[in-house]
Amino acid sequence: MIGRDLIGIEDLSRDEIKMILDTAVRMQEVGRREIKKVPSLRGRTIINLFFEDSTRTRSSFEIAGKRLSADVVNFSPSNSSLNKAESILDTAKTLDAMDPDCVVVRHKVAGVPQRIAELLDAPVINAGDGAHEHPTQALLDMLTVFQEKGRLDGLTVAIIGDIAHSRVARSNIYGFLKMGAEVRVAGPPPMLPKDIEGLGVKAYTSLREVLEGADVIMALRIQNERFKGAFFPSIREYSATFGLDRAKLRWANDDAIVMHPGPVNRGVELSHELTDHRPSVILDQVRNGVALRMALLYLITGRRPDKSA
Amino acid sequence: MIGRDLIGIEDLSRDEIKMILDTAVRMQEVGRREIKKVPSLRGRTIINLFFEDSTRTRSSFEIAGKRLSADVVNFSPSNSSLNKAESILDTAKTLDAMDPDCVVVRHKVAGVPQRIAELLDAPVINAGDGAHEHPTQALLDMLTVFQEKGRLDGLTVAIIGDIAHSRVARSNIYGFLKMGAEVRVAGPPPMLPKDIEGLGVKAYTSLREVLEGADVIMALRIQNERFKGAFFPSIREYSATFGLDRAKLRWANDDAIVMHPGPVNRGVELSHELTDHRPSVILDQVRNGVALRMALLYLITGRRPDKSA
Amino acid sequence: MIGRDLIGIEDLSRDEIKMILDTAVRMQEVGRREIKKVPSLRGRTIINLFFEDSTRTRSSFEIAGKRLSADVVNFSPSNSSLNKAESILDTAKTLDAMDPDCVVVRHKVAGVPQRIAELLDAPVINAGDGAHEHPTQALLDMLTVFQEKGRLDGLTVAIIGDIAHSRVARSNIYGFLKMGAEVRVAGPPPMLPKDIEGLGVKAYTSLREVLEGADVIMALRIQNERFKGAFFPSIREYSATFGLDRAKLRWANDDAIVMHPGPVNRGVELSHELTDHRPSVILDQVRNGVALRMALLYLITGRRPDKSA
Repeated sequence: MIGRDLIGIEDLSRDEIKMILDTAVRMQEVGRREIKKVPSLRGRTIINLFFEDSTRTRSSFEIAGKRLSADVVNFSPSNSSLNKAESILDTAKTLDAMDPDCVVVRHKVAGVPQRIAELLDAPVINAGDGAHEHPTQALLDMLTVFQEKGRLDGLTVAIIGDIAHSRVARSNIYGFLKMGAEVRVAGPPPMLPKDIEGLGVKAYTSLREVLEGADVIMALRIQNERFKGAFFPSIREYSATFGLDRAKLRWANDDAIVMHPGPVNRGVELSHELTDHRPSVILDQVRNGVALRMALLYLITGRRPDKSA
Repeated sequence: MIGRDLIGIEDLSRDEIKMILDTAVRMQEVGRREIKKVPSLRGRTIINLFFEDSTRTRSSFEIAGKRLSADVVNFSPSNSSLNKAESILDTAKTLDAMDPDCVVVRHKVAGVPQRIAELLDAPVINAGDGAHEHPTQALLDMLTVFQEKGRLDGLTVAIIGDIAHSRVARSNIYGFLKMGAEVRVAGPPPMLPKDIEGLGVKAYTSLREVLEGADVIMALRIQNERFKGAFFPSIREYSATFGLDRAKLRWANDDAIVMHPGPVNRGVELSHELTDHRPSVILDQVRNGVALRMALLYLITGRRPDKSA
Repeated sequence: MIGRDLIGIEDLSRDEIKMILDTAVRMQEVGRREIKKVPSLRGRTIINLFFEDSTRTRSSFEIAGKRLSADVVNFSPSNSSLNKAESILDTAKTLDAMDPDCVVVRHKVAGVPQRIAELLDAPVINAGDGAHEHPTQALLDMLTVFQEKGRLDGLTVAIIGDIAHSRVARSNIYGFLKMGAEVRVAGPPPMLPKDIEGLGVKAYTSLREVLEGADVIMALRIQNERFKGAFFPSIREYSATFGLDRAKLRWANDDAIVMHPGPVNRGVELSHELTDHRPSVILDQVRNGVALRMALLYLITGRRPDKSA
């Protein structure tokens, strides 16, 4: 994958996903050493270009890069000076001229990382764009499930929440389907896109139904501002209908695990108790995020692409 | 001290303080080399988690970590997204899952570093919490005094200003008393807690009296916003009564030194002239802060704790 | 140049400029290696002290420092807490006490880097101060021209725009004149200082005239806020009169190159098409900026000055 962009899980093959996960497992081993740093990316420069604030994803990439001995430069343009598409692209091209080996891009508008990738010499990793994709989140989720279950193929994955506006949902749908899992989604009707089943998933409006037979339950973060438009009664009603607690969890398979991309709205998507205890694996997801991003940075920037190509 | 938290000077023994100061003296030696960097903490990750803005303390920890070859990741959550205690703790736990070797925490609310430390695997260093403690400031102050005076035992230390709201005062009171110094405090009555003498210090409301016999004078920074509540007449009156200049300094011992945690409100706590010249040692305090924090980071993260413990 | 400040091109001799450019050419070679990092500044600490936001210049210095293995610490004081000259200088002195090997300063007020340099032990590099100087921009511009033209001596350089308020213009005027080029300036009359010809340049108010015979055309960024005062009709009129496109470019020499310090207001200073294609060399300027700043950091901090001097 040297020199390649990673814009979405949609663009990856099953074999590529497998290779990324295998590499991440090796990177986990580095994290367990007394000196948890390897010289693999010494002399490489990684730019974190975050137009949208995201301290946890940015920190994860920063720590991943540094554990591989890369130089990591954070760049968070203020929104005020960058509200036009033009200046976004010019900013990216300017940074590209400083010859980074990888540019990690987050932007609240879907498609921006793709447009930047088309313009830049450096490979681009999408760290989340609008409601489009968040591929590294889906990859770390798959890594977490694989290590919990020993496989992805044949599992039943239930994704619950605002499917329509979630890049995490989209990337995970693509990913788990490619790896042979069955994927179901559930949420209040306004949060379920009409054409969602066209992606190959089954849609439910009942929590009980979507959980029956589920091995993996993925709760999405609710964006409070969505409720202001009044298209759904209230957060309280959402929580009563689609929030998970230990009682509702019994509807799923006995060994089902609970995931969440974080940060959890405690008492809304998950009960306090479930947020902090097994079978939720939220902090494992975070931990695996570092190893997964190390794997990607290594695979994409481990050697320098032939610029003459 | 491998793997231990440092929340307050109150928790340290006299021997521990001595060991930290001794280690800091060795770290000062590193700072005088042609290449002022040692590989001691290579592969260690230090997270600066500053909920309250503090460029000088944050920079001091960052430079200290880098001189020991650690990777330092700065994380300054915006207040807006983190106004609930719950999200503060979840943020800290998320960062902890990225497996840092130390988390340095500053927060405007007393007790937050302690609560974070209870939840995290990584050791936590308190970089200042509300009016509670600022242990690294007190340690660098003790280091500075020790190097000026050759001892701490038997010295008379006068701390002047808003004792009631100062974490610097509290940490220094604990520290100097443990090391055998006599500690006095002075300030306008509303700034002197009623029970302050219970800590083992003597309280004064006259500058002249507190200075008589003092070897070390520590002026605290006045928070201008405190004066808005009108519980004290005015900054001008504060300065006239408790501000130090070369004339008032004659009331202290001839070889007394003047300290301030910075930044100085020039003309309020200290005269312009005294801010910039001996016997004030303000920049030595800053300089010693780097060596002191190198010592702490080294003592706490120099080896990895046994996670199975 | 070990230990020296760089406040302005005005202070450099022709030989010093030549040495800096020669060193930058060697640094470009480092950027082309598989591992584009050298240990030259290991153990050196560089502080980016940017009172004025500037992500591109800050990133360029940060990447330059890291390619030389220096530790780079970013410090961007919020304006609110630093609106008095006094606190600016105290902040700089505080950072200086942490013993950095170089402090890179940007401030919106002309003269601040000079005042800071006078107070600090560490050498200071001016990264732009008000309308005074931006020496590293001029040096990277000279490097770019030298590599395009094979020489600086005898070239004709036309600088176009708001000459009166441009630190880029001033630094380039000093630099190119010292290197034996002819420098011309052009802009609407309110943007041409009355005494500008006293610097040794010729002033024009016609784009056609300033371009005739020009080898190098440097368009300056227009500050939109300047137009609010109504001393010049409109941005549209500016663009019609002084904006460059391929048609107007024919007035210059056939092999003239077009430069811009960025970011370009597309369609104002330069047409869209000219912004993105030769003979504009805007991204080469950015690329050369990293090598040029590596050269300066190396020349200034490569060895430690004798502090006893």
